Amino acid sequence: MLIRSALALMTTVAIRMHIKEMLDEAERTKAPSFSFEYFPPKTAQGVQNLYDRMERMYDFGPKFIDITWGAGGRIAELTTEMVVQAQTYFGLETCMHLTCTDMGLEKVNDALQKAYKAGCTNILALRGDPPRDQDTWIVTDEGFRYARDLVKHIKETYGNHFDIGVAGYPEGCDDNKDEDLLLDHLKEKVDMGASFIVTQMFYDVDNFLRWVRRVRERGIVIPIIPGIMPIATYASFLRRAKHMNCKVPEEWLAALDPVKNDDGAVREMGRKLVTEMCRKMLDAGLRHLHFYTMNLAQATRMILEELNWMPCADRPRKQPLPWKQSLGLGRRDEDVRPIFWRNRNKSYVTRTQDWDEFPNGRWGDSRSPAFGELDAYGIGLTGSNEANQKKWGAPVCVGDIAGIFVRYLKKELETLPWSEAPLTSEADSIKDDLVNLNQRGLLTINSQPAVNGVKSSHPVHGWGPPNGYVYQKSYLELLVAPELVGEIIKRVHDHPDLTYYAVTRKGDLRSNAPTDGPNAVTWGVFPGKEIVQPTIVESVSFMAWRDEAFRLGVDWAQCFDADSPSRVLLQNMMDTWYLVNIVNNDFHQPKTIFNLFGGFAVKDINKSAIAGAATKTNGFHPKEADAPEAVNGTPTAAVA
Amino acid sequence: MLIRSALALMTTVAIRMHIKEMLDEAERTKAPSFSFEYFPPKTAQGVQNLYDRMERMYDFGPKFIDITWGAGGRIAELTTEMVVQAQTYFGLETCMHLTCTDMGLEKVNDALQKAYKAGCTNILALRGDPPRDQDTWIVTDEGFRYARDLVKHIKETYGNHFDIGVAGYPEGCDDNKDEDLLLDHLKEKVDMGASFIVTQMFYDVDNFLRWVRRVRERGIVIPIIPGIMPIATYASFLRRAKHMNCKVPEEWLAALDPVKNDDGAVREMGRKLVTEMCRKMLDAGLRHLHFYTMNLAQATRMILEELNWMPCADRPRKQPLPWKQSLGLGRRDEDVRPIFWRNRNKSYVTRTQDWDEFPNGRWGDSRSPAFGELDAYGIGLTGSNEANQKKWGAPVCVGDIAGIFVRYLKKELETLPWSEAPLTSEADSIKDDLVNLNQRGLLTINSQPAVNGVKSSHPVHGWGPPNGYVYQKSYLELLVAPELVGEIIKRVHDHPDLTYYAVTRKGDLRSNAPTDGPNAVTWGVFPGKEIVQPTIVESVSFMAWRDEAFRLGVDWAQCFDADSPSRVLLQNMMDTWYLVNIVNNDFHQPKTIFNLFGGFAVKDINKSAIAGAATKTNGFHPKEADAPEAVNGTPTAAVA
Repeated sequence: MLIRSALALMTTVAIRMHIKEMLDEAERTKAPSFSFEYFPPKTAQGVQNLYDRMERMYDFGPKFIDITWGAGGRIAELTTEMVVQAQTYFGLETCMHLTCTDMGLEKVNDALQKAYKAGCTNILALRGDPPRDQDTWIVTDEGFRYARDLVKHIKETYGNHFDIGVAGYPEGCDDNKDEDLLLDHLKEKVDMGASFIVTQMFYDVDNFLRWVRRVRERGIVIPIIPGIMPIATYASFLRRAKHMNCKVPEEWLAALDPVKNDDGAVREMGRKLVTEMCRKMLDAGLRHLHFYTMNLAQATRMILEELNWMPCADRPRKQPLPWKQSLGLGRRDEDVRPIFWRNRNKSYVTRTQDWDEFPNGRWGDSRSPAFGELDAYGIGLTGSNEANQKKWGAPVCVGDIAGIFVRYLKKELETLPWSEAPLTSEADSIKDDLVNLNQRGLLTINSQPAVNGVKSSHPVHGWGPPNGYVYQKSYLELLVAPELVGEIIKRVHDHPDLTYYAVTRKGDLRSNAPTDGPNAVTWGVFPGKEIVQPTIVESVSFMAWRDEAFRLGVDWAQCFDADSPSRVLLQNMMDTWYLVNIVNNDFHQPKTIFNLFGGFAVKDINKSAIAGAATKTNGFHPKEADAPEAVNGTPTAAVA
Repeated sequence: MLIRSALALMTTVAIRMHIKEMLDEAERTKAPSFSFEYFPPKTAQGVQNLYDRMERMYDFGPKFIDITWGAGGRIAELTTEMVVQAQTYFGLETCMHLTCTDMGLEKVNDALQKAYKAGCTNILALRGDPPRDQDTWIVTDEGFRYARDLVKHIKETYGNHFDIGVAGYPEGCDDNKDEDLLLDHLKEKVDMGASFIVTQMFYDVDNFLRWVRRVRERGIVIPIIPGIMPIATYASFLRRAKHMNCKVPEEWLAALDPVKNDDGAVREMGRKLVTEMCRKMLDAGLRHLHFYTMNLAQATRMILEELNWMPCADRPRKQPLPWKQSLGLGRRDEDVRPIFWRNRNKSYVTRTQDWDEFPNGRWGDSRSPAFGELDAYGIGLTGSNEANQKKWGAPVCVGDIAGIFVRYLKKELETLPWSEAPLTSEADSIKDDLVNLNQRGLLTINSQPAVNGVKSSHPVHGWGPPNGYVYQKSYLELLVAPELVGEIIKRVHDHPDLTYYAVTRKGDLRSNAPTDGPNAVTWGVFPGKEIVQPTIVESVSFMAWRDEAFRLGVDWAQCFDADSPSRVLLQNMMDTWYLVNIVNNDFHQPKTIFNLFGGFAVKDINKSAIAGAATKTNGFHPKEADAPEAVNGTPTAAVA
């Protein structure tokens, strides 16, 4: 039973998350958890591939990830860059490795400062590998001799900001096999302030458990995280075991040797062996496993599946909010965002990175510092002109563009200029309505269906803590031809439940919103909490989004030669069309927002933007573009 | 169509409400509205009666009220005190009358400052009646000669804080019958900054409408509010008309004279005549009527009923929030309160009157300044010992107290020590459950039923703007005998949807709330707005309420002689019982919170608190006290 004094009940704000806390929580709830380790790749393409993979592996549900320290120059820069990426954009709680003996004070301080600024609050403090061409350590000037010195330095410099982990060596260290001496070193590191231990890889579980007992006998009580190396190929398995001086049990060799030339069979056997090893540790009371992914997804994934730890339809990855949180510096409490950047998460995080304060609980004055400029890296349209032409073709009429939007909705295209990721299953319930709108030239760049109180555990719409209910108002954001906008606005005005904003690239804004304040379009009701309202529609941020939305269209236009029909078409649309968002405030009515558009269609949808140019003859056409078609009872004549 | 620039969309905060704005709004929406005028009564009892009446007449739905200026000493004090009362506790938008010629600068400034501090933002600036024994004005030193001087002074001193009204004389003034000269004066007052006109009483509508045209011809465009005197008795009707030099149309005299000795018939005829007069003005385009109530409710009420303007079940008085807002200084944006003071509105307003900032949108740090002390006026139990004994009798056992609570629930008692007003119809749906609990000695001092999204226009549960949905979690607050509290808490812990706080008078607090933050127990979803969550449960305010709740019980105990059975019983309960609140977070389940108590009852519910004293023989017993009875299948044995 919980008994607290009134004073102890004062609200505390979560400004950081320490790995120690997560491990304590796992211990309390007996819920097993796991983490992934990545290293900085050697090439730019490797980095991009790894980022994609890290983002996908976010969905596996690791409690945190490690980024190893890339000793020396550019590769060290890459470690801190990867920490920023993981914390800020992927919302992955990250532990940065840091070696000291090969660094010197200035470089260590620089790395720590970069980690701090990235919002990182966990460091794995390591001594560092000896340079290959030396047998003994040469301590750099003003540098560190042992990992314990680094632990001490971090504590002295940053107090309790960083949670500090240290390495454990169940099978001895590269240059030191004396277990007692190594345990002395471990004890010293703990005494200096380390609060968790990550072990080197091993395959001999019995020895590991023996070692854990010896650690405990030394009076070391902090959590121990076993490091586990999944098996990808037989060759890599042997190479790594040898490199790390890691003992391979006889029965492992006996099981793997017969299939060593069949990579698939090796992975299968590896899955079985490593899973067994994991189960044995879990049975012995270990709660958290750390996987050396070697920057690959599959081998780790197979083990998680075998342990039945992968999220699935019945047990989806639990998200605290309907959008992916950033763990960048000062952002942990952020829990309200405008809906406009729903499909451009990175751009939103970038454009707000200079804010001193993030909305928490309500969308208040924290948005008053301006949104960042459009020319910051990663906000404009990505991809080369060539690649984008290949992806989306060369549209010459509104009908061509409508076709591209329809292909995206049908998941035949992965991205649109306004959507950086494929359509999610959330749109399934309104997909037919969206396709219908786009076929008529009403180009939908963002939407969400109405949800009237489903359980927070709902596989598609659910988010937040258990035993809650979540809600959404239906939302639609479209690019609208100028000849249609007047009648659409008139119809919205005639409907008491609809609110809208419409704006041109130049900034002429129309709205029927009752106040200048925000309209909550997603919210959740949870036990013992205030109502959480993580997504809103409001005017100031819409004006900032307008700049970006039209800019993306202009960027797309500029993928084509000047005076080409595609360039003229897109540029003309950006100059004259409206960006319109509509909210149906009655979240009991899922269809109202679509019924609004009955009878609308863009005039001359297949007419080229260049007068006189024969329709559908100029330029490359996207191969599978759906030709817009007359929809049941929907005349294609425009409503004036 | 609303077209605004982005800058104009910045949020503005409503720090005041001006009568001019209300009148403009009425003009825009063509919605008729009305206001009431009161004057300071001569006796203390008269003041108390008037306060009760003003609070009841709040429910008629006046847009604002006027308090006339009580020229001279104590009676002027009373005007400002009434303004405080109306603004702060009744949430009535108030216009304070202020006369100048009989005041002097210092007194005027003092009155304005008091009005300002009360949150009042509207002043009716008047010259003041000539003293009865003088025919001409004697201007006080440094004083004012005309109302226009006062208007000018208020503008110069307070800028636009106060909206200023002035008097209009359709039938001439007491000491001046020259209409042209009076219109000159009116024009001067308007030129000085007045923004609305309230007329003296009249019965000749045709003359009034003629006068309005003359006012407009003078280029005066501000709204004109006709002042209407309902008819209570024939004598008072004639006396007032004579006193105000007000012309009575022949047909009125002809209609009233035959029934002049029958007060009921006079009121009936008066209702007909005054309503006709009102309709004529509404037909002529007037939107707002001001009633001289003469501090009486009935005559005005009859006219409002005749005009079909009274709130009723079909058309309830629109409340912006589920509790009555205070319009005290700085409080206008307050829109979150703890549920604990639900039945003690005045006490909450008093205890928080020193706060610099009030919760708006969420219950944040604004609660950190401590709640005011318990010894402030009006927080403890009101009424004399004698009166309270008469009301609630002299309970000698828990069963007696249970009986008092049951009588309150059955509306046979108007108040309880913990409830300053009769039970509202909101409790109807859970009344039987509450009665059942109290019969078992589980004393409920506050509660609300679960509401799962009814329209905001709902006659019982609705509040806020139109086209919204409102919600409530079921809530129960009880005084619980110490032998029951352990098992109740155990059952709450076993239920995933329930959260609770339990506390003794000394402050031992238990809770299973997941965070120290607030739990929203009432909220509403409205078009184009953030979620409004006006009522919450949380720990800090619960600890403040605990002091008050136990103090009320101790106050009640002290209504009885030392060592009397009632004193011992109540004091003992306050010393040993728990104050428990429980929220069912699943607002889809209205009954769960009651099912929790299956099988519970206070042991020896009819045993006197004084050992050996014969039960039910000592002391006065409340006449109609329901004896606790065994309830369907509910054993009365206590659960240990």
